[in-house]
Amino acid sequence: MTINIVIAGPRGKMGSEAVKMVMNEPDFRLVACIDHKNNGKTLDTILPEVDRAIPIYEDAQACFQNHKNTDVLIELSVPAAGYKHTKTALEHKVRPVVGTTGFTETQLKEVDAFAQQQNVGCMIIPNFAVGAVLMMKFAKMAATYFPDVDIIEKHHDQKLDAPSGTAIKTAELIRENRQSKKQGHPEEKETIPGARGADLDGIKLHSVRLPGLVAHQEVIFGSPGQTLTIKHDSMNRASFMDGIKLCVNRVMEIKGLIYGLETIL
Amino acid sequence: MTINIVIAGPRGKMGSEAVKMVMNEPDFRLVACIDHKNNGKTLDTILPEVDRAIPIYEDAQACFQNHKNTDVLIELSVPAAGYKHTKTALEHKVRPVVGTTGFTETQLKEVDAFAQQQNVGCMIIPNFAVGAVLMMKFAKMAATYFPDVDIIEKHHDQKLDAPSGTAIKTAELIRENRQSKKQGHPEEKETIPGARGADLDGIKLHSVRLPGLVAHQEVIFGSPGQTLTIKHDSMNRASFMDGIKLCVNRVMEIKGLIYGLETIL
Amino acid sequence: MTINIVIAGPRGKMGSEAVKMVMNEPDFRLVACIDHKNNGKTLDTILPEVDRAIPIYEDAQACFQNHKNTDVLIELSVPAAGYKHTKTALEHKVRPVVGTTGFTETQLKEVDAFAQQQNVGCMIIPNFAVGAVLMMKFAKMAATYFPDVDIIEKHHDQKLDAPSGTAIKTAELIRENRQSKKQGHPEEKETIPGARGADLDGIKLHSVRLPGLVAHQEVIFGSPGQTLTIKHDSMNRASFMDGIKLCVNRVMEIKGLIYGLETIL
Amino acid sequence: MTINIVIAGPRGKMGSEAVKMVMNEPDFRLVACIDHKNNGKTLDTILPEVDRAIPIYEDAQACFQNHKNTDVLIELSVPAAGYKHTKTALEHKVRPVVGTTGFTETQLKEVDAFAQQQNVGCMIIPNFAVGAVLMMKFAKMAATYFPDVDIIEKHHDQKLDAPSGTAIKTAELIRENRQSKKQGHPEEKETIPGARGADLDGIKLHSVRLPGLVAHQEVIFGSPGQTLTIKHDSMNRASFMDGIKLCVNRVMEIKGLIYGLETIL
Repeated sequence: MTINIVIAGPRGKMGSEAVKMVMNEPDFRLVACIDHKNNGKTLDTILPEVDRAIPIYEDAQACFQNHKNTDVLIELSVPAAGYKHTKTALEHKVRPVVGTTGFTETQLKEVDAFAQQQNVGCMIIPNFAVGAVLMMKFAKMAATYFPDVDIIEKHHDQKLDAPSGTAIKTAELIRENRQSKKQGHPEEKETIPGARGADLDGIKLHSVRLPGLVAHQEVIFGSPGQTLTIKHDSMNRASFMDGIKLCVNRVMEIKGLIYGLETIL
Repeated sequence: MTINIVIAGPRGKMGSEAVKMVMNEPDFRLVACIDHKNNGKTLDTILPEVDRAIPIYEDAQACFQNHKNTDVLIELSVPAAGYKHTKTALEHKVRPVVGTTGFTETQLKEVDAFAQQQNVGCMIIPNFAVGAVLMMKFAKMAATYFPDVDIIEKHHDQKLDAPSGTAIKTAELIRENRQSKKQGHPEEKETIPGARGADLDGIKLHSVRLPGLVAHQEVIFGSPGQTLTIKHDSMNRASFMDGIKLCVNRVMEIKGLIYGLETIL
Repeated sequence: MTINIVIAGPRGKMGSEAVKMVMNEPDFRLVACIDHKNNGKTLDTILPEVDRAIPIYEDAQACFQNHKNTDVLIELSVPAAGYKHTKTALEHKVRPVVGTTGFTETQLKEVDAFAQQQNVGCMIIPNFAVGAVLMMKFAKMAATYFPDVDIIEKHHDQKLDAPSGTAIKTAELIRENRQSKKQGHPEEKETIPGARGADLDGIKLHSVRLPGLVAHQEVIFGSPGQTLTIKHDSMNRASFMDGIKLCVNRVMEIKGLIYGLETIL
Repeated sequence: MTINIVIAGPRGKMGSEAVKMVMNEPDFRLVACIDHKNNGKTLDTILPEVDRAIPIYEDAQACFQNHKNTDVLIELSVPAAGYKHTKTALEHKVRPVVGTTGFTETQLKEVDAFAQQQNVGCMIIPNFAVGAVLMMKFAKMAATYFPDVDIIEKHHDQKLDAPSGTAIKTAELIRENRQSKKQGHPEEKETIPGARGADLDGIKLHSVRLPGLVAHQEVIFGSPGQTLTIKHDSMNRASFMDGIKLCVNRVMEIKGLIYGLETIL
């Protein structure tokens, strides 16, 4: 069965990847796009890699009215527009798969209630990278048995913050499954400060920044005689497409809101 | 609460590690050992690292009769004795944690029924390495989302079989969660035979054998733009002690037989 | 001191990277390009990322006559044109740095003699990736002390040949520094054929092919109690620019031909 | 040709490994041992794994007088005795291979002069691990081309100091081949202090401490589009035996003192 899809934000980094993915997937059909400019143009005149005349709408209402067969909205535009597009889609019983962030708790509840009322599914997914979400899930599971853990994350040297958000989130998930613990020898000494890394409730985080790296993380658990390592390497945005695909298929089967990829993996 | 423990096979490689572990664990107490020789001697005269006069019995019946407070039997002797010790333990309502292999299907059913009848737990565990079992569990879970996978296992160069039993078992578990698939380019060519490794239903297995290695395995899943790797490194038999500890605690809480560490992780 | 540079093949994958690199390097100046079409146009009208009107010539003679201050030709066009461009450059005492392959032994000798006669340097470099060349160099050095070695190379699953050319070249270099040796246990058995990889004079080569991988190789040496691993990860063509930069600077200092990056590292 | 060897310190951790190595090496022959006790006894009564009656001497003079055919002394006792044994060996034209540390600059010069005068070789080697020394050598070489580098060292959680001595020494060697450089983004921020590791002249050092680890180090160089990694994993003291073997063979060929394994690799 073919799923008819509208993409919001087709010119963005994620959006243009999603356009390619949807056009290459045999069971998906791209019926239209929502863009804050280019109303009335077609996608092939905007994106060099597209060769079909997919219509572009600035107005979400007009888009769904003209394409009543739309099954799913892939929302990858900007936070300001994301909430509005999501609600408009639900009004037309189109199921939103939303990568845009910035929904408030109140908005999430409202979207859930509205989706239930319209009897369709809705997914809001802050991180579409299946591999990264599985890494965090496995790390949390392993922490039950292996309380000693260091996280090493490696990124290109243009990254500003250390540790990375994913490393911090991983440590927080691990913390839920282990008791607070000071790791290493009780009397260990740093002869150069910082050697033992950042400390999050006893979990050690190390941030490597080098040209040539992209986005990598390994979570290393140690116990006497063994180590268990869970490692994710992300090369480019293509890594998010598996997650979007999964959600498009899944949103067809559910009612109401699902938040976060970890819920369905 | 202290758990009173008898160990069968205290002079073996696993057994002697288990003796050390039990003596170091604050909540465990080693009350006696079962050995096929050394009846009437004490453990400190046999194992140099033991400094307490733990009594040794050749007869399991005599052992449990003399130590009525025994809670758990850790059975690490030989297959021939394992089944007999297990039954004798259950007769005395002592819970067996069994690392000995070689139980038949019929024996497993019988042991389960007998444990149920005696209202105590029993665990038979072919592989106590928590890390290896978690690696296999995570690999099976990841295969649902990432059907492309290579397994690289690395061992010391005295190992005779390739691929390792763990690598084959991992591939079999992965196979349960993915459809059969030929990996790589349809027209790929091996210019030197064997380059692409062993093939188990499309999953590729690579066996590295070098001096200096111990026992290592990594399972690498790939999908566009990302890879997810699960890796286990085993240095020595201490790696099995976490699993034994876990089982000793768990066997106190269950009724009947649990088979395999994966069941409780 | 600024080095004035002409690039041949500016629209190719390597060439367009080289254009960017030369324009970003403070000590380099791009004076013109040689292209088999677009004569008389300027580079900014061809490459969107270029904002300067660099002149394009189809004829190398004309190019060097109009830009007599040219110090170096970076030749990244096609084999058919590479030899001709190289000779024309030398006629004008412009130093060629050549990435094009396909020079015959006779041509190499002729180019060397001509460069000597013109009293300038010339470099012909089949592989500009400094990291890959260092990996091979170190691997060859380590083989003197560690005769046991496995090579694991990992590439995207669109690659046709296994093992990779780099893996084979690495094994050949290692072979020069060790005696032929059958590795692993003399009686080891493959229970699934191919597990132990490809065999090149006893050296084992393993080829992993997965989506999400780019181009990776690790050379693992083992000896009792230790392993030494040399690993190169290549993400994209930017990895060749360090090598080109190095050669542009070096070719200014030499006379005659240098072949291969390994000669100068 | 067989090399006749005396080992000083045969009961120590390194010494007992060296005894095994010498006895297993076809071209080496263990003729006697020097020990600060056990005079007149034989080695088989002291070390369970030895089955030959190798004589033990407390006095080095007596040892070399009784075994005039001795070619090499492997000195693995304690600093206090090391210098004395080395001089006594040289008096008898026995070539010392010394793992004992603590020689002063003056003593080194004196030993060199004395070895020259006696016309024999002498080697004083603070680190016999060939793999670790090669890692440092390669890292220093690579730094010429790749100035951006992070070092990750991983050890068991009983280690007191961080970073490890080897990591610091590696960074110091790298520093000799690159200009001082602040790595990472100029405006990078540690949201948890220590994330970016210890800083040695811009080089970042990260220390992982976990049960299950032994002694591991990786040196990661990054440049646009690529990374080059040199990694050493040490499992046990067997890793030092390759270095001792190498030195025993080499000391036969030289005159005067060689200090440090890096000199001969």
